[in-house]
Amino acid sequence: MLDIISIGDELLIGQTLNTNAHWIAKEMDALGFRVREHISISDAKEHIVYTLDNSLLKADVVLITGGLGPTNDDLTLPVLNEYFGGELVVNQDVYNDIEQLITSRGFEMNDNNKQQALVSSKCKVIRNKKGTAPGLWFEKDNKVVVAMPGVPYEMKGMVETIISWIKQKYTFPEIVHQMVLTKGLPESKLAEILTDWESNLPSTIKLAYLPSPGRVKLRLTSIGQNRAEVQQLIDEQVALLTNIIPDNIYSVDNKNLEEIIGDLLRHNKQTMATAESCTGGYIAHLITSISGSSDYFKGAIVSYANEVKINELRVNSTDIDNYGAVSEQVVVQMAKGVLTKLNVDYAIATSGIAGPTGGTTEKPVGTVWIAVANKNEVMAKKYLFGTDRQVNIERAAFAGLSMLYDLLND
Amino acid sequence: MLDIISIGDELLIGQTLNTNAHWIAKEMDALGFRVREHISISDAKEHIVYTLDNSLLKADVVLITGGLGPTNDDLTLPVLNEYFGGELVVNQDVYNDIEQLITSRGFEMNDNNKQQALVSSKCKVIRNKKGTAPGLWFEKDNKVVVAMPGVPYEMKGMVETIISWIKQKYTFPEIVHQMVLTKGLPESKLAEILTDWESNLPSTIKLAYLPSPGRVKLRLTSIGQNRAEVQQLIDEQVALLTNIIPDNIYSVDNKNLEEIIGDLLRHNKQTMATAESCTGGYIAHLITSISGSSDYFKGAIVSYANEVKINELRVNSTDIDNYGAVSEQVVVQMAKGVLTKLNVDYAIATSGIAGPTGGTTEKPVGTVWIAVANKNEVMAKKYLFGTDRQVNIERAAFAGLSMLYDLLND
Repeated sequence: MLDIISIGDELLIGQTLNTNAHWIAKEMDALGFRVREHISISDAKEHIVYTLDNSLLKADVVLITGGLGPTNDDLTLPVLNEYFGGELVVNQDVYNDIEQLITSRGFEMNDNNKQQALVSSKCKVIRNKKGTAPGLWFEKDNKVVVAMPGVPYEMKGMVETIISWIKQKYTFPEIVHQMVLTKGLPESKLAEILTDWESNLPSTIKLAYLPSPGRVKLRLTSIGQNRAEVQQLIDEQVALLTNIIPDNIYSVDNKNLEEIIGDLLRHNKQTMATAESCTGGYIAHLITSISGSSDYFKGAIVSYANEVKINELRVNSTDIDNYGAVSEQVVVQMAKGVLTKLNVDYAIATSGIAGPTGGTTEKPVGTVWIAVANKNEVMAKKYLFGTDRQVNIERAAFAGLSMLYDLLND
Repeated sequence: MLDIISIGDELLIGQTLNTNAHWIAKEMDALGFRVREHISISDAKEHIVYTLDNSLLKADVVLITGGLGPTNDDLTLPVLNEYFGGELVVNQDVYNDIEQLITSRGFEMNDNNKQQALVSSKCKVIRNKKGTAPGLWFEKDNKVVVAMPGVPYEMKGMVETIISWIKQKYTFPEIVHQMVLTKGLPESKLAEILTDWESNLPSTIKLAYLPSPGRVKLRLTSIGQNRAEVQQLIDEQVALLTNIIPDNIYSVDNKNLEEIIGDLLRHNKQTMATAESCTGGYIAHLITSISGSSDYFKGAIVSYANEVKINELRVNSTDIDNYGAVSEQVVVQMAKGVLTKLNVDYAIATSGIAGPTGGTTEKPVGTVWIAVANKNEVMAKKYLFGTDRQVNIERAAFAGLSMLYDLLND
């Protein structure tokens, strides 16, 4: 079992979102490690020692991030060095790495940089290719404690080495997590429909419902010695599930909608574009977050101002006056407009009131019109989301992708 | 002191990013509560009880999220009910809330829904306006344990009530966190320049360096009984700091760059647009994430395909052939093109290789050209970021916003 300890007041007080623990957990879970806890604690010696004592009662491996920087608030190295009874010594490899990095950036080595070449005499060093603080690997009583920097890309650069060292020390059972992504049914309704299937699940399969706006993910987890056997057991259940709710499942590969749409478009040798008002480029961002999206995504017109809707997307200005920018008439013209203008096969258009201000009695905050179009047809739908701007942008983006997915599968 | 416990295997295995703990921590810190730990644990009775026992040794208040849903993997209610020695009873208010919500969505009440009206006889109920599972407030030995749903917007809808109840029970000292946002200096160099200032800081002020790609945040924290006095002490230090690195500080209000740029443009009654290739709409998304951005943001042309660069942004196709799409010549024309086309005062343009594939020896992955323009001038700069697609998109967006900020302050 494995614990992840994240050190830093910025996490505790909610200034920094803890993406490190999330990323490390995913890597370790894929490796077959059972992750027991994530713990975020303050930059304080007693707190670090207390937490480490507690974790080592239960966990075989403890991965720590944060507090390895060059400044006075960074305590992880001295605390761990003392914890394992070592001395601080200069590591020449680390010194050379730092010198190379600092001079390549056009700065000269200063005392802070030189101090970063100090490591504990009781640890193995993990070289840092992307920053100055090395990682530290300690072992004691057959348990492992590893410290990494808190800067995400520096930490990520070390995990390959850590995984290879862990593999030399431990063997793992095979864990299979199968995700089944559903849309169109709230969690309680989905659970009702699946009652019989769920109660007949083999006892070795654990089921979880993970709801988020507009969709519910089902996770089936099983553990065994033989990966193929575990996967087959799960596949049988997924096949049963697909028979029960064929129209609600959109992915069994844990691919998100933008990836699935990309696969379909690439396979069909088709292209797409977006015309975005309230989503402000977020759908384009989701699509272009997928590597290789340039195969099918040509671009987007983000038409925040009405004049951009009129001039670039050829929306009729009289319709904006008569029906408002947030209307079926306008969003349909936006979709058709971008389809023609960027000469693509499919388009998504959005126009809505993301909030928190700008709502009216007739069109409250959260009102969003979405259209999808291809050369033959255009479909538009009105949604009423909530009052939170970010959530509304996310829900509108998911709804738009979801409508495009349905159109592609027509 | 306060602990935040997040329950759910999806967190432990890295499938869901724990945004709840981050959000709650920010709210509680603003209230004046000292947040001691965030702990993420599995959906298992023994683990919940063990963690709660541990937390209550140190914390006065424990806030729990997750495991309150309507399905069989949700254990928080029965475990807490047993922990506090209660019985499960139907709460009629909760029943009515659920009935209203379910019928408004066009579904009928099913057994799962009805079961969600069960609460513990030992708790006060926190009504859920956005979902079916109510929040649970337990008290024992002058300590408080609160359970909330894991769905973020349902949880957020309960925090106002929880804060008002907490305020009735506790008084708090004033905590002031002052953020100073800097750019242009790596952490080690910044710390070197600030050595004297840092060693002369009053002992009641705690300093932290928070580095992220391209920038370092400094956080000054102090606690006292009188908010104005604490703030004044910090303000004096920020004034000293501003004298030392006047060109590197871009915010002392903890505003991010897109907010600061928005404030400047609104104040100047000016407008902006973006022309995005490798950032794929992400800069437009950041800008439109700010409420009120329609005052100054007219729109964006996301020109992923070269034909969109040529047709929409009037980039010379011969220049794309001669210099490539990722070049100074092209990115300058993109910036000028969107400036003219959307008739705005300022523009940002990006063209680069986000990766992980598509690099060449001459232009490796991470090569990004960025231009900013107004009616009188265009500035372009080449960057070499790393190999991670998401990080490259983020760094390019920050660099573009940073260049626009500099141009606005010219």
